[in-house]
Amino acid sequence: MKKRIDEAAARAAFEQALETYDQDFGKFFLVKLFGMEVDYPDDTCRITFDLKDFMFNPQGGLHGGVTAFVLDISMGHLLRAKAGPGTTVEIKIQYLKAARAGRLTATGRFLRQGRNLSYLQSELVDDKGEMIAFATSTWMAVKEKA
Amino acid sequence: MKKRIDEAAARAAFEQALETYDQDFGKFFLVKLFGMEVDYPDDTCRITFDLKDFMFNPQGGLHGGVTAFVLDISMGHLLRAKAGPGTTVEIKIQYLKAARAGRLTATGRFLRQGRNLSYLQSELVDDKGEMIAFATSTWMAVKEKA
Amino acid sequence: MKKRIDEAAARAAFEQALETYDQDFGKFFLVKLFGMEVDYPDDTCRITFDLKDFMFNPQGGLHGGVTAFVLDISMGHLLRAKAGPGTTVEIKIQYLKAARAGRLTATGRFLRQGRNLSYLQSELVDDKGEMIAFATSTWMAVKEKA
Amino acid sequence: MKKRIDEAAARAAFEQALETYDQDFGKFFLVKLFGMEVDYPDDTCRITFDLKDFMFNPQGGLHGGVTAFVLDISMGHLLRAKAGPGTTVEIKIQYLKAARAGRLTATGRFLRQGRNLSYLQSELVDDKGEMIAFATSTWMAVKEKA
Repeated sequence: MKKRIDEAAARAAFEQALETYDQDFGKFFLVKLFGMEVDYPDDTCRITFDLKDFMFNPQGGLHGGVTAFVLDISMGHLLRAKAGPGTTVEIKIQYLKAARAGRLTATGRFLRQGRNLSYLQSELVDDKGEMIAFATSTWMAVKEKA
Repeated sequence: MKKRIDEAAARAAFEQALETYDQDFGKFFLVKLFGMEVDYPDDTCRITFDLKDFMFNPQGGLHGGVTAFVLDISMGHLLRAKAGPGTTVEIKIQYLKAARAGRLTATGRFLRQGRNLSYLQSELVDDKGEMIAFATSTWMAVKEKA
Repeated sequence: MKKRIDEAAARAAFEQALETYDQDFGKFFLVKLFGMEVDYPDDTCRITFDLKDFMFNPQGGLHGGVTAFVLDISMGHLLRAKAGPGTTVEIKIQYLKAARAGRLTATGRFLRQGRNLSYLQSELVDDKGEMIAFATSTWMAVKEKA
Repeated sequence: MKKRIDEAAARAAFEQALETYDQDFGKFFLVKLFGMEVDYPDDTCRITFDLKDFMFNPQGGLHGGVTAFVLDISMGHLLRAKAGPGTTVEIKIQYLKAARAGRLTATGRFLRQGRNLSYLQSELVDDKGEMIAFATSTWMAVKEKA
């Protein structure tokens, strides 16, 4: 028998994404599909979103790829806001705990902001403050066309 | 002005996913949304999919989070097929080259299959054979309930 | 012409190591050779040592392998002190800045202490407080023989 | 009671290092201390060395920091030989198996050689061909002074 997701919630997320996306930072399609909200308290970038089961792996928790996605954008958006656009050179994610429900928050921070290379970290926590995942990454500045 | 994706393609992917998904290995919702096909040639797990622009970052290439997703499942599905289910302890991804069009293939392999911990690698290549990304990861076996 | 190190300093380090080492935590031979001092303020493990040029790479800075060594032991010794012995499953180190002189301090901390798997981080800073390197690692508990 | 290393072997390694080192690629002090031999078969860099117990951790196996060291130089020396000098941006090492005796071989290879950033991998195997550790790293080219 088919193990189902909440299809109405998935459809609502999809329709909402199509209406509100714009392929720019903070609002591109996948950000909107996952219902992620972006802000920049202090020197961080914070992304919050509610878990929905269409983001899950077959074991019933948030898929590690979505975890990677939200950690990646929390660092890439911070870099973009503070230093201009860049590309991810590499990212490492440690998975500390499964996430099955509630609201999650990823917070990206600089380890070191450089002219060419920047080093960042980010943590994903649940609404009880428990750490779900921790990431570090390295970014290369992209020269913008004049 | 809004920078648009191919909305008809995104909608087709979504409807196809809703029809065909089942929250199990190889066919859970996100796998189907991204149009990923899974097979197991030799001792590998191979995932193929066509790039569609709803998977893109604001800079117009495959988002690193989707790259992470496909590399993760190429390793997790191999582990599941050869040794039973596991959870990702950690993953590292290096991004070698942007991917903007065509069909991509991720191929997961064991570095070492252990009883508790297993070590895997995976590479993502484009249809010209150029490497887009390379990942290594560590997995912990999950005891299945009897 | 041969590019020399301070050979007297290397010899002094070696003789001191031979006299004082004991193949146990905090005092095994390599720890003593590199002149590393270990303590445990609060819930951290702190390792301090003076740079000597026998630890250098051909470019005249602290070799990345020695950086890896000190970061590894700052985490492994913390784990040992708080939770018993373990083995490194994996470590990732980001190199932020070259270190050429002075006294360095590595500080290891838990991201999450688990029964089987523990997740740690450590940072290496110079005597001006600038970050030289940042590491995260994963450890597996080792059952001690009764 | 003091747990001893083979002190005569450590002293021989030290004296040999002092006599033969030169702070350049392939022969700097730590390379000589660890008795590492470097060659470049095909498009790889291969480092071989005999385990000696002064390189061990308190648990009686090759210390993970020395593993990191040999993997780092197998990649850095390959980069230097093929593309000029660079600095390690980051390295990740997975530890698959303890090494307690015999001769080890690290083999570094390019994943992608770039103008600014290069991506490499390396594996450390024992004399039975079993994999001890696997590493990936990223390097930034250093402009040499004219």
